Amino acid sequence: MISMNQIIVFRYGHRLERDKRITTHCALVGRAFSAEKMIYCGQEDPNIQKNVEGINKRFGGNFAVEYVKNWQKKLEELKKEYTIVHLTMYGLELNDFISENNKKKSTGNICIVVGSEKVPPFVYQIADYNVSVTNQPHSEVAALAICLDRLNPDYLKKSFVDKHFKNGLLCIKPNNKGKTVLPNK
Amino acid sequence: MISMNQIIVFRYGHRLERDKRITTHCALVGRAFSAEKMIYCGQEDPNIQKNVEGINKRFGGNFAVEYVKNWQKKLEELKKEYTIVHLTMYGLELNDFISENNKKKSTGNICIVVGSEKVPPFVYQIADYNVSVTNQPHSEVAALAICLDRLNPDYLKKSFVDKHFKNGLLCIKPNNKGKTVLPNK
Repeated sequence: MISMNQIIVFRYGHRLERDKRITTHCALVGRAFSAEKMIYCGQEDPNIQKNVEGINKRFGGNFAVEYVKNWQKKLEELKKEYTIVHLTMYGLELNDFISENNKKKSTGNICIVVGSEKVPPFVYQIADYNVSVTNQPHSEVAALAICLDRLNPDYLKKSFVDKHFKNGLLCIKPNNKGKTVLPNK
Repeated sequence: MISMNQIIVFRYGHRLERDKRITTHCALVGRAFSAEKMIYCGQEDPNIQKNVEGINKRFGGNFAVEYVKNWQKKLEELKKEYTIVHLTMYGLELNDFISENNKKKSTGNICIVVGSEKVPPFVYQIADYNVSVTNQPHSEVAALAICLDRLNPDYLKKSFVDKHFKNGLLCIKPNNKGKTVLPNK
């Protein structure tokens, strides 16, 4: 069993109107699949943090959202403690990265960068790995989810349902024909 | 080895302004992860089909987008030939569905339903399986991608890069530090 350290999501280039839902989906995927927080740059949007805080309150956990203006400087700082993995359709194959990563005794800290439409060369250069989840255009939300899913060393065995978010008000009991929402004990 | 039959994506309740990017991402995820087409209902939006056709032209394949007005009737028709799998945070665990499905000699045809914010009880009732990709709120785009990824019986071995879309103009060669886009041969 390898140990998992901290994973953070870095969302490059948020655009206020165009990306409001996509960036929120990136944050919620990060939260649901065990990342610690999402850092984003581009246009600042307090609603993203507000939405995520609402979800934390209802469903638990303390997933954080942080805005940075000087994103190059932030990535340079992060690179000292995190392996930078940039998800791009132009990158090397995800499976190769995952196998290499899972051979290590510790995965270390990982910062997964997902971009909006146009990601500058700086990101490709600073990344330790530029990784593709298919070489087809699709969705940064999907790419992020699949990368986080496969980074989990137990992902074939692990029950998603076991995942425990503390301090939430609500808890969902799996149901094949409707919705069962219970107060969290 | 089980045989894979047709998979289609059914996007419930498209809202013209709010969902335009999310629904397009659903279509592109369907395309990249081997579904045949996406059917959607709600507000009709010709841009979704236009965007997907542009991607098909450049990167190949013939993923189709179809709008239906009477979605209940369409789901009833589909149920005759497809197993209806509705992805919802309230559903039973994905892994249980996947293990059950992979025991079969043939997976048959599968219609994966993803909703927008509020999905009516009809969908929960008509679905053969209501399945959760975590019981946490996140993203229909992510849930769809993970379900399609795990439905692929070869998903641990299969190279995403091998995936071949015929008739595209362009083809991407995986690169660890930049973009390599070649004419498709």
